[in-house]
Amino acid sequence: MSARRPPLVGRYTLEELALAARNRGMPLEALRDDVTPSGLHYLLVHFDIPPVDAASWRLRIGGRVQRALELGLEELQRLPARTQRVTLECAGNGRAQVSPRYPSVPWIEEGVSTAEWTGVPLAALLERAGLAAGAGELVFRGLDRGFDRGVEHEFARSLTVAESMREGVLLAYAMNGAPLPPQHGAPLRLVVPRWYGMASVKWLHAIEAIEGSFDGLQQASSYHFRTTPGEKLAPCTLMRVNSLMTPPGIPDFYSRRRTVQAGRVVIAGRAWSGAGAIARVELGDNGTWLPAQVEPAAHGFAWQKWHAVWDAAPGAHELACRATDERGECQPLAPPWDLSGFGNNAVQRVHVLVVE
Amino acid sequence: MSARRPPLVGRYTLEELALAARNRGMPLEALRDDVTPSGLHYLLVHFDIPPVDAASWRLRIGGRVQRALELGLEELQRLPARTQRVTLECAGNGRAQVSPRYPSVPWIEEGVSTAEWTGVPLAALLERAGLAAGAGELVFRGLDRGFDRGVEHEFARSLTVAESMREGVLLAYAMNGAPLPPQHGAPLRLVVPRWYGMASVKWLHAIEAIEGSFDGLQQASSYHFRTTPGEKLAPCTLMRVNSLMTPPGIPDFYSRRRTVQAGRVVIAGRAWSGAGAIARVELGDNGTWLPAQVEPAAHGFAWQKWHAVWDAAPGAHELACRATDERGECQPLAPPWDLSGFGNNAVQRVHVLVVE
Repeated sequence: MSARRPPLVGRYTLEELALAARNRGMPLEALRDDVTPSGLHYLLVHFDIPPVDAASWRLRIGGRVQRALELGLEELQRLPARTQRVTLECAGNGRAQVSPRYPSVPWIEEGVSTAEWTGVPLAALLERAGLAAGAGELVFRGLDRGFDRGVEHEFARSLTVAESMREGVLLAYAMNGAPLPPQHGAPLRLVVPRWYGMASVKWLHAIEAIEGSFDGLQQASSYHFRTTPGEKLAPCTLMRVNSLMTPPGIPDFYSRRRTVQAGRVVIAGRAWSGAGAIARVELGDNGTWLPAQVEPAAHGFAWQKWHAVWDAAPGAHELACRATDERGECQPLAPPWDLSGFGNNAVQRVHVLVVE
Repeated sequence: MSARRPPLVGRYTLEELALAARNRGMPLEALRDDVTPSGLHYLLVHFDIPPVDAASWRLRIGGRVQRALELGLEELQRLPARTQRVTLECAGNGRAQVSPRYPSVPWIEEGVSTAEWTGVPLAALLERAGLAAGAGELVFRGLDRGFDRGVEHEFARSLTVAESMREGVLLAYAMNGAPLPPQHGAPLRLVVPRWYGMASVKWLHAIEAIEGSFDGLQQASSYHFRTTPGEKLAPCTLMRVNSLMTPPGIPDFYSRRRTVQAGRVVIAGRAWSGAGAIARVELGDNGTWLPAQVEPAAHGFAWQKWHAVWDAAPGAHELACRATDERGECQPLAPPWDLSGFGNNAVQRVHVLVVE
């Protein structure tokens, strides 16, 4: 099982392009919004968006529980709800900048967004079901089905009981105050704050308490760091410290290179880390780093805004931004090597021509 | 002005990938919906999504008019409104399948969608302003600004007075029953039914009546058919006859190849033509064409649903679909040659493995 696809270098294949065209990144000018406007949130659909009839849909909670539960959407919506702002990032964000690269969704840097999610805390439902002795993990099963590396499966992921009970882990039925759209997992999805997005299973239809560890492809094989094909290092879990800026000035249509008028320019962006708050952001200008102002973490699970005033002098500039989190983890200048292109949190670089 | 970029063959460049990642196609499973769900409508933003303050925004109508007008959003929303279903398609849809290809947004086939637009008929506003003698075209100016082929400009397009007064040409402030989202032109955009999408100017801030023909880059240089660089043939106007199917069965994550269980399978999709209603759709199975059922055109400006029952026999199949409109125009089997990749309405091909 899980034969890996051969690595790629240089230009992008038709398969990569097709994945980029049907999935989508967040245009970086949307970094100006605290909450990514509806329809601009990044999107990764492994298989197809499944057709789901919300009226007949049920969430089944079973396995090693004291009371198996089956709930419809209206029943879930009658339970005490919580709304929270969460930044999600794809574990493969930045993959297109790693060389050689793994043939998959070729994110450049735009696989991150923030939404307001409304739903039922998972812990409340698990308490209602009552975990039975021996329950070690919860498996979350989606309705999306297909093949990956020769294996047919529905997308499914697990969390340990402790991770599942964490504050903020939500079964969400609304996004930005509107019913969850089909592409984001309607009628119900998991939202796991601080973790890379693969944990936040969409089109959720079953939660199963199991003994031991879940051996599904998307858990046991995919989403692990690897430096060589035979290896399996740590799983992808918390988002690494990362940051982005809104590219300043105006773009060229094809190259996206920027043109900026000389003078004082406010450069602004967002920074985030699954491990905690952001301690520091620096703005790089042709290799010189200047301190940026970072707004406090008002929402525990969401990115933080930062800005710096840049004195733009005529000529060619490579701007960059670099965040450090409260644990002292700092973004690297070059992509960290990973065979599958996971966890690339190297600094963003924006090419700008400053004109008088 | 307007030096063209050199043509490309083979794999896709980082610039093409970046355009595919920040713009987005409609995942083809959304063909099951009469109206494309919000957030799944295809999107092409030439420059950046401009930040617009709806409270201070004004639409200015001037030039060769009897009464220059300036209207805020609330004033527009108090005028008699119309809601209509419109299919829009990018003029460059299918560009990635033309070889050699023009370096631009590399649509494969997914640059088409349908929405319900609400707004004010353009004709009503033009009657209020009163066109002055000599007015030949209306120029529609957007707030999005950048460079293309070395020329800085705001995105702007024109229509003749006769085209502007056509039934269905709308100044839209709502999409699918919600306020127009930023990426689709908030607070106001033009919607020109039956035409390729470039005519439907987003982030509209000015309408100017002019004598003669508008000479802006996006009108006089871009969006013309060409077979050689020195040539300028007809402008892109009405959408050519085209059709798509929802790929059946389940996909492989990377290759998107489909696996289908043998037996009777309903294949369904949509067909459209700017020139009028769809007369006929055929489903191709390894080169044999079978008639499909086409639903009547209930909405004059929207795609029509079609379906065919396919007896899926085990083995490899190349499915295709081909529409003919009421004028007798039929989709070609291979992409029509165009230097810029405009107007590619060649039949879609879907590779399917049928298993017992």
